Amino acid sequence: MRWHSSMDEFTLIKELFAPLTQGFPGALNLTDDAAVFAVPPGQELVVTKDAIVQGVHFIGDEDPALIAKKLLRANLSDLAAMGAAPLCYFMALMLPRDTGADWLQRFTQGLTEDQKGFGIHLAGGDTTATPGPLSLSLTALGTVPAGTALKRSGAKPGDTIYVSGTLGDAALGLCFLTPTSVGWRLGGGQSGHGGANTAPTLPLPLRGREYLTYRYHLPQPRLTLGQHLRGIAHACMDISDGLVQDLDHLCAASGVGATIEAQKLPLSDAAKQFPSAEALNAALSGGDDYELLFTVAPGKASQVPEGCTEIGLITQGSGVQILDDEEKPMVLEKKGYRHF
Amino acid sequence: MRWHSSMDEFTLIKELFAPLTQGFPGALNLTDDAAVFAVPPGQELVVTKDAIVQGVHFIGDEDPALIAKKLLRANLSDLAAMGAAPLCYFMALMLPRDTGADWLQRFTQGLTEDQKGFGIHLAGGDTTATPGPLSLSLTALGTVPAGTALKRSGAKPGDTIYVSGTLGDAALGLCFLTPTSVGWRLGGGQSGHGGANTAPTLPLPLRGREYLTYRYHLPQPRLTLGQHLRGIAHACMDISDGLVQDLDHLCAASGVGATIEAQKLPLSDAAKQFPSAEALNAALSGGDDYELLFTVAPGKASQVPEGCTEIGLITQGSGVQILDDEEKPMVLEKKGYRHF
Repeated sequence: MRWHSSMDEFTLIKELFAPLTQGFPGALNLTDDAAVFAVPPGQELVVTKDAIVQGVHFIGDEDPALIAKKLLRANLSDLAAMGAAPLCYFMALMLPRDTGADWLQRFTQGLTEDQKGFGIHLAGGDTTATPGPLSLSLTALGTVPAGTALKRSGAKPGDTIYVSGTLGDAALGLCFLTPTSVGWRLGGGQSGHGGANTAPTLPLPLRGREYLTYRYHLPQPRLTLGQHLRGIAHACMDISDGLVQDLDHLCAASGVGATIEAQKLPLSDAAKQFPSAEALNAALSGGDDYELLFTVAPGKASQVPEGCTEIGLITQGSGVQILDDEEKPMVLEKKGYRHF
Repeated sequence: MRWHSSMDEFTLIKELFAPLTQGFPGALNLTDDAAVFAVPPGQELVVTKDAIVQGVHFIGDEDPALIAKKLLRANLSDLAAMGAAPLCYFMALMLPRDTGADWLQRFTQGLTEDQKGFGIHLAGGDTTATPGPLSLSLTALGTVPAGTALKRSGAKPGDTIYVSGTLGDAALGLCFLTPTSVGWRLGGGQSGHGGANTAPTLPLPLRGREYLTYRYHLPQPRLTLGQHLRGIAHACMDISDGLVQDLDHLCAASGVGATIEAQKLPLSDAAKQFPSAEALNAALSGGDDYELLFTVAPGKASQVPEGCTEIGLITQGSGVQILDDEEKPMVLEKKGYRHF
């Protein structure tokens, strides 16, 4: 079903988007020029913004609910990385004129489900037509007790480096979705999302494939972990462009170096079905992990919760060194996803 | 000059965008996952978001500084409509891969100039490639003393209706830029920006043309007026989609009707050079005015500053009635700009 003249911008706002603001009075039911709300006393605001484009960040034939959820979760992951709790979000939709009402309903359904799961509400936005590909931008706002936000810049030599969850799953999962069109080749191909080009021929059980593609479509923002790490972690960020590239940024922001041990990288059971070099490459440089990467002084190691894995040490100097299982330095062909 | 491999996302952020955050420490110099900052005690946050797309909202061959300024000013106009003072903004750039470095530098220059003029800073954002047209999204944050934000919903029967500045200039100005491609025809054409199709043949002096196109490119967000109207206006919004359509929304939000007198609409000297029916149509339904539309109880009329014009009255009932200079109701073919 395509839009007809009665389903214009104002109808979209009233029927699809305004219900997403219920529970957040500051959205003014989307009838005003802007949202108005208070930030609780003693809290600071944490704000992040992401944009995604069909053909670059998603394929376009996915379930629209998955596109909505991934966009929201990627932003929530940024809030998690700062130790913030979600507050509200603003969304801009740039829609091709033939976008169907069913597409929009399913997209909105995805937002509805994740809003409940993560305790966040839509508070405003903009909807416009585009002659180009479907493009979306989301700005997420969170709060953190004043002075406690986690940053990239606090890592100190001697800190232990941790990651949450498992790494490389999303990059391996993507190759089952688009082995040739969007995914890049591990070990030096065109830019794009992470994926291993030989993987689809592997005899990976269906459940393993489903798990990896699930991890690509539905990252899990580590909000509880991020808030727990306030006062514990010296530095924190989320891994979205690949572990090594992102750790390199954390080191640069902190004025330190890092050494990580490849054999310590946490891999899922599904990822372990891949040839070890490919799984390792995905873990080191594949995008879309949305796990937290953080550093903790040795004396606070006991406060790091289960589900996090120690992968190396912060050092003096600069840059990221990767040691193989014989403790020899490895050379990585491609650090991670770059947007141009 | 096109980008080469050394001018990637991180270079863009460091060289072009990070300098725009100077003076706003909460941006963390754009090296972190999100911005972190406090909202002053006693203040509420006001947040608005707009998206613009080449070929829909702008032509593409404009001076990039003008595109940047109009995007920022359209959002500042929303803050003005709520009575807010600017705080910071977040921007997403979805850039075609052949976007030149000179384009980006000029775009950034426009932001730099308007940041100084309006006292606002960049605090974060996202930059990504797009296979489609250049697309931009901006989220602006402002502050207002708690409980004083102006809204659309407070208009009361008996209120006087005012507008700031002059109306229809931008719609008339656009026709000198794109008489056939982007502009719509006044009185019932395709959707698009406002414009009068016969205008370019008028013997309008160059200065008048320049004034009108200037008004199209560089709307003036009425920030000082908006803040002054706190505690004075019952209802307020900015006119972006055409006076009648926007007033219709204000009336619906307030549960009232409105009567406006066509002869009272403020027209610029340049607009008065057009046939009166065309100038009037542009004032009633042309887009991109970015003037404030507000209602005030008769007893507070003396507190409305100069530069604002009384155009009619809020009534009981619903809808907008327009009276001609013989006080007969007029029928308008097209209320204003709609996005689909």
